[in-house]
Amino acid sequence: MYQIIDGKKVANEIQENIRQEVNKLSQERKKIPHIAAILAGNDGASETYVNNKIKAAEKTGFQSTLIRLHEQTTEKQLIEEVEKLNQNQDIDGFIVQLPLPKHINEQKIIETIHPSKDIDGFHPINLGRMLLNLPCYVSATPYGIIELLKYYQIETTGKHCVVIGRSHIVGSPISILMAKNNPVGNATVTLCHSKTKNLKHYTLQADILICATGSPHFITAEMVKYETVVIDVGTTRIKSKESKSGHKLIGDVKFDEVAPKCSYITPVPGGVGPMTIASLLKNTLLAAKKEIYK
Amino acid sequence: MYQIIDGKKVANEIQENIRQEVNKLSQERKKIPHIAAILAGNDGASETYVNNKIKAAEKTGFQSTLIRLHEQTTEKQLIEEVEKLNQNQDIDGFIVQLPLPKHINEQKIIETIHPSKDIDGFHPINLGRMLLNLPCYVSATPYGIIELLKYYQIETTGKHCVVIGRSHIVGSPISILMAKNNPVGNATVTLCHSKTKNLKHYTLQADILICATGSPHFITAEMVKYETVVIDVGTTRIKSKESKSGHKLIGDVKFDEVAPKCSYITPVPGGVGPMTIASLLKNTLLAAKKEIYK
Repeated sequence: MYQIIDGKKVANEIQENIRQEVNKLSQERKKIPHIAAILAGNDGASETYVNNKIKAAEKTGFQSTLIRLHEQTTEKQLIEEVEKLNQNQDIDGFIVQLPLPKHINEQKIIETIHPSKDIDGFHPINLGRMLLNLPCYVSATPYGIIELLKYYQIETTGKHCVVIGRSHIVGSPISILMAKNNPVGNATVTLCHSKTKNLKHYTLQADILICATGSPHFITAEMVKYETVVIDVGTTRIKSKESKSGHKLIGDVKFDEVAPKCSYITPVPGGVGPMTIASLLKNTLLAAKKEIYK
Repeated sequence: MYQIIDGKKVANEIQENIRQEVNKLSQERKKIPHIAAILAGNDGASETYVNNKIKAAEKTGFQSTLIRLHEQTTEKQLIEEVEKLNQNQDIDGFIVQLPLPKHINEQKIIETIHPSKDIDGFHPINLGRMLLNLPCYVSATPYGIIELLKYYQIETTGKHCVVIGRSHIVGSPISILMAKNNPVGNATVTLCHSKTKNLKHYTLQADILICATGSPHFITAEMVKYETVVIDVGTTRIKSKESKSGHKLIGDVKFDEVAPKCSYITPVPGGVGPMTIASLLKNTLLAAKKEIYK
């Protein structure tokens, strides 16, 4: 019988641990962590994401600051806002919610964020330090996956981990982390992507299969072997009359047919998704405690 | 019949092309590239390496500066030297030869080098930008491997590339590069290392096998399939009465028995090795032309 990896439960526990730590800081009259977010423009989804992050931060006792900029904000104005946050000693870490309005160069903005406050872990220095296995901010999704594997004490050393998808924010970093000489790591890692031929040849070898393609229900039962650990990062939003919001999230994996073959599997929703906010808060706490950069 | 990948020939061609480009710059009375190297201490091998780099640089018409510091140089003194080179507008790029004396923190020194002059490509920013497929200095060995595959027009897209070894300077970066959406890239990449179980299971799948373990004659004929492309990064130095220098270089691959099964194979010496200096000179030229950082 397969076991569900309950991301909601793990995320709640992590957030509760952070809340207790913040509470203690507060009792000791120490500075409590302060997160900031910049939201430029009026993208509906972005607005929801940022609000959820800020709400979760406040729930754990963080101070939070939301900076709203209008759609027509220039790149120069945005850079000025970023630099203000870099210099503001009260702000421990901050994010610039992506995507940005099209006239703004995202990479330039990311590289303007001071690496020590880059709690999204998108700055090249943090990625480079990850590659060197040095202390760094790991971005939310890969960090969340590592935490889930740790929580369920899933053995990774010497296992064959197959990652599908080579995006900068999920597939590439998680493929790197899984191969590092760390307690959750030391796996033999195969990175597959859109140019991979005969994908099934690889997925059938996976002891741990991490899917981050964004193709709904792409992974079927015949593609996985028995006892595989399946981590489904996909969250394709489709219209649905069944839910109040009018849409539902579909993973990369055909859960109903794949799950019976698995030892562990993440559901969608409720698997990797809830971990991303917990990861961001964890990075903010690390920033406040200056555990990554002194 | 297998084809030898002749690194010496390719390196000579690259260096000759650079020499012609420098010659043209000189005729146009433009600034010619200027490389510098810092050598701290008296390690015999390091001395040879640095001298070879400087000699090759001069042969291609570069200006060069060698800064020699004694074994007892403090970390602070070395940092001052690095900062002088960072600020010296005449120096386009420089290296600090590794390993450094044990009392000096190598990572700290590497991170002191300005990324725009980091022609070794060891700064976390350059590694992070490599991961993001942005313009960057790629370190010498991975760069050399890519150039060899390009020169011999070896198809990589959709091929299974198996990398053995996860070092920061070879295995990890080449495993990343081979999977990127680039002309030499788009391979499905498996990264194996000391914790991999049943290595042969993976090597037998390799269309392209890149060995960077440093274990002499580790790869035997029974570990590779027919028509594999084998890139041998190993250069273990052993004593030998046969050579004038008193030692010879042994690769990771048992060449005599593996070569007959291959489509292409690099010899040791004369394969990847000669490419590293060519790569360093190429990075210096890119630095002088400000093609990576404006």
